[in-house]
Amino acid sequence: MKTSIATVCLSGTLEEKMQACAAAGFDGIEIFEADLVVSPSSPAEIRALAQRLELRLDLYQPFRDLEGVTEELFEKNLHRLEAKFQLMQQLGMNMILVPSNVGTATVEDDTVIAGQLRRAAELAHRYGMYIAYEALAWGTYVNTYWHCWQLVQAADHPNLGVCLDSFHILSRGDDPSRIPEIPAEKIYFVQLADAPELGMDVLPWSRHHRVFPGEGSFDMVEFMTYLTQAGYSGPLSLEIFNDVFRETDPSITAADGLRSLRWIQQGARGHLSTDNPARDQLTAMPKIDPVEVIDHVEVTTDAPDECGALLGALGFAFIGQHRRKTAQLFVAGGVKVVLTPVHQGGTYISSVALQVANSNDALARARALGAPVVSRPVTADEVRLPGVFGPGGMQFFFVDDTAASWPTEFGADLDRLADNTNTIRLDHLNVPEARDHFGASVLFTLATLRMNALPGQDVASPRGLVHSQALESPRGGIRWVFNRVPRTYTNRAGEPVRYPGHIALAVDDLEQRAAAAIDAGLAVLPIPTNYYVDLQARFGLDDATVRRWQRLGILYDRNADGEFLHLYSETLGGLFIELVQRIGSYQGYGPGNAAVRLAAQEQHEQQRRL
Amino acid sequence: MKTSIATVCLSGTLEEKMQACAAAGFDGIEIFEADLVVSPSSPAEIRALAQRLELRLDLYQPFRDLEGVTEELFEKNLHRLEAKFQLMQQLGMNMILVPSNVGTATVEDDTVIAGQLRRAAELAHRYGMYIAYEALAWGTYVNTYWHCWQLVQAADHPNLGVCLDSFHILSRGDDPSRIPEIPAEKIYFVQLADAPELGMDVLPWSRHHRVFPGEGSFDMVEFMTYLTQAGYSGPLSLEIFNDVFRETDPSITAADGLRSLRWIQQGARGHLSTDNPARDQLTAMPKIDPVEVIDHVEVTTDAPDECGALLGALGFAFIGQHRRKTAQLFVAGGVKVVLTPVHQGGTYISSVALQVANSNDALARARALGAPVVSRPVTADEVRLPGVFGPGGMQFFFVDDTAASWPTEFGADLDRLADNTNTIRLDHLNVPEARDHFGASVLFTLATLRMNALPGQDVASPRGLVHSQALESPRGGIRWVFNRVPRTYTNRAGEPVRYPGHIALAVDDLEQRAAAAIDAGLAVLPIPTNYYVDLQARFGLDDATVRRWQRLGILYDRNADGEFLHLYSETLGGLFIELVQRIGSYQGYGPGNAAVRLAAQEQHEQQRRL
Repeated sequence: MKTSIATVCLSGTLEEKMQACAAAGFDGIEIFEADLVVSPSSPAEIRALAQRLELRLDLYQPFRDLEGVTEELFEKNLHRLEAKFQLMQQLGMNMILVPSNVGTATVEDDTVIAGQLRRAAELAHRYGMYIAYEALAWGTYVNTYWHCWQLVQAADHPNLGVCLDSFHILSRGDDPSRIPEIPAEKIYFVQLADAPELGMDVLPWSRHHRVFPGEGSFDMVEFMTYLTQAGYSGPLSLEIFNDVFRETDPSITAADGLRSLRWIQQGARGHLSTDNPARDQLTAMPKIDPVEVIDHVEVTTDAPDECGALLGALGFAFIGQHRRKTAQLFVAGGVKVVLTPVHQGGTYISSVALQVANSNDALARARALGAPVVSRPVTADEVRLPGVFGPGGMQFFFVDDTAASWPTEFGADLDRLADNTNTIRLDHLNVPEARDHFGASVLFTLATLRMNALPGQDVASPRGLVHSQALESPRGGIRWVFNRVPRTYTNRAGEPVRYPGHIALAVDDLEQRAAAAIDAGLAVLPIPTNYYVDLQARFGLDDATVRRWQRLGILYDRNADGEFLHLYSETLGGLFIELVQRIGSYQGYGPGNAAVRLAAQEQHEQQRRL
Repeated sequence: MKTSIATVCLSGTLEEKMQACAAAGFDGIEIFEADLVVSPSSPAEIRALAQRLELRLDLYQPFRDLEGVTEELFEKNLHRLEAKFQLMQQLGMNMILVPSNVGTATVEDDTVIAGQLRRAAELAHRYGMYIAYEALAWGTYVNTYWHCWQLVQAADHPNLGVCLDSFHILSRGDDPSRIPEIPAEKIYFVQLADAPELGMDVLPWSRHHRVFPGEGSFDMVEFMTYLTQAGYSGPLSLEIFNDVFRETDPSITAADGLRSLRWIQQGARGHLSTDNPARDQLTAMPKIDPVEVIDHVEVTTDAPDECGALLGALGFAFIGQHRRKTAQLFVAGGVKVVLTPVHQGGTYISSVALQVANSNDALARARALGAPVVSRPVTADEVRLPGVFGPGGMQFFFVDDTAASWPTEFGADLDRLADNTNTIRLDHLNVPEARDHFGASVLFTLATLRMNALPGQDVASPRGLVHSQALESPRGGIRWVFNRVPRTYTNRAGEPVRYPGHIALAVDDLEQRAAAAIDAGLAVLPIPTNYYVDLQARFGLDDATVRRWQRLGILYDRNADGEFLHLYSETLGGLFIELVQRIGSYQGYGPGNAAVRLAAQEQHEQQRRL
């Protein structure tokens, strides 16, 4: 389907917004009136800019408080409307959004409202314009899509149809299943917006906290499926009021938005049977099976010796250096880590390679989701791993059977690697992401790898709340946590400081592993005694166990599913390693313990600076 | 009354928080358990630190999910509680907060709950401890203070009392007027928290958006008055969960918190008759009449020539240079502006001088609100204006009759100044404030000058939403608007850029003034044509008027109270001047027009950079 986005979603001037939308690949935009009003460009100039950028001007919006008013006020409103039609003529547009009246409605009479809508449509007809009438969730008299549709039916004019906005429907808990009963030709426009559960009134929720489809908690795919069943064939537009988007580089936001429209269409395709002709309206993405295995992780580091020592202490074997580059391969059990030395910039996860059935399909899918391709030079007889940049700059590589021999470039014996009896596994990755890129990175990762999002959490740190979003693959093979970095992560000079990410390794014998690793030189993050005093009181643990854990720096949690033991290494310039042991069917990450860790890291960092 | 604050209000480590509380002047603190758990300091070390800082450890909190449970679980809970009493012994504390059960309550039976509370109190008695039981607004069975008090009465134990938290009472819309019916000796503790109206569920509202008393929309003074009538004599504590506080320098937050406790006590004193003995419990502040007149405004500038030219174009007369310093006095009508040249740093309002009956009283009040004194050297025969630093660094000076001769130091003839027939007046000041200082600056200004807060507003700018908070003096003599600067106010190198503040001058003949000023060289901020097209459609204005306004750069608003015309000068390194004309009894600031202005300024700035 054609894609569109309201200019109010984006930061910047109208001209900057249009540039960003075109660059992201949108087919069209909605002109948000306030953006036009403050623009120095004339309507003719905006029209010309849109033509040059090959952007359709799909919808002029909003025209407020038209209907359900006294005759005297309605006549004034028609004058207002006529002025907008004249403006739209200059813009070369033909559709205007009329949301249901919230400001001036005094006549609660469907006959009057439908009559006024019809008269507005007659005026539209004279100008060759179309009116898309939309029920706001907080409309005074009209606040459901069905009521809106009934009024449009009653008004019965070929220049009047409905606009369906997922936020206004789903935020009220309204049932979208009757959408297919509306004739496709009367659905003039569709606006898609998701939102996280926030326990807020609809109005402030809508004004500040909408997000792109897939980034919130509404069932957007189901909504899209109903639209498709209704026969709606576009444009599919985004109208997101979001305080963070208003402060974010519009090129990031626009790319994120287009990605969400690709994702939602693909999702709806999955809900429709393949012989349903409506399905063809939906833009397809290259389909892959959900990704379940991380092939290897690349750590870029300006401290390769320390990093190698850390891995060594944890039981990783150094396999070898790349035959041509300075990269080093470390392996423990099923976990492969490639260390790439650099001169400066700290230590961080720079790429993640994923096992896929067909790397070309995976690459094509990632590209369809707006990811730029990574080009890493290889020589003729080296394996070329196709890859892309994620929104936050991390690289994703795709490894299929044909590329499985890449470790031989590090001198590895593939058979011996496969025979590794070390029972260490990758438990999860934890990746920090700046506020600007957080939502985009989560949606990109989720959509590219076909993961599922768990509910988000806030973790208290001495520098502010850290928002944490865990993704999991359907069969649990990959767990991937994103942390939104607080703006306070700066050093004393106010320069940004690398908020640490981490790699969590799962073992079956944490206490023994920890003891051995400490003997081998592992520096464990010191956990305060007060934590163990509290732990003992909370869980009624025996003294000996708690003392043993304390000596090893092990943290603990227990719930109905099982138990969780884990410890953290000291941070190495932006990265640390976590060792975890899951007992029973414990699925969490030790809630509460992350706050202890963040405080201990802060304390440790402060002492280091002294 | 003694003052206290929960450590959860503040950013940093427990030790940093304690330092900040002591420095701000709090008498005591509440130890938030999670802060202790993550601290490397032992309980004995925390106790010693508190002693050295002369901080009382008033309350250990929270002990969750104690009561309303099965006997089996309750016995486990008693064990948990006993461990906390042992910990509190090490801390040298004797009071613990028990909020009503929200996690594990299954027994909805007041007899059982009261019995369990009594048994907990008996345990407390054995340790010399006291339990303050508090109804959480979202408590499973116990969620009103009255129910909480009934249970404490039924439990009937000398080691059990209630904790009253204003948030939990007022957020539910509960009536606090029965507080005086609770015997003072059974009110063990009081937590004060305010909150802005956000239309949210109580739980997320409480966890993220509490603010200090006076910074939200609850009637905190009335609440404080009931507490005083109940005979409660302290401590008076703050428990604020706030995402911004968690990221703010704790010394700013602590000073802001103590200020709010001074403010609320003074407010409650005003509500109690002077012969009410309870009134003496409340810490008094030096009292002054509400301030209604700004004596003069000081503008510090690295572009004094341009600044002087701007003032001159607007009809200001240059009176003279200070006899000893480089400062220059400009006067128009009742408005005095002192220009203080500096080498660099842009142009901004650096101080505001206020007319008061007694400058010593005003200074004492400001100091009681935690403001450091400004010391500006003067020679023996010069007027010394007492003054303080506001939280954001702006200076406040107080001018009484004895100091009214200060303009003579600029060579002014006081009689001629008084005779000035120019009908220009100060309409309002608009002062930008960083996110960290915003709440503190608003509360300080409001409390020091005895102003009232209007509802806050969000204004869309190309760089994000700007939150705007207007204060007005009771008789309307002073209007003072604070703008919270978006974090995006940086230049291309990421360095902070001065978000412009402004001085708004009121005139009765805006069109003539504007024309004259433009003739005299005033550079008016260009307002886009699209604005005027929209304006005409919105208000049905005639062509000639709109064309005239457009030529002069005049913006317009109209409401039931009257009309508003205004224009903006171009920005001069962080400051611009607004000219306004209020017609009828128009009280607003032209809502919507601020967004036009912000966009026009951004556009103008971008062109300037090209």
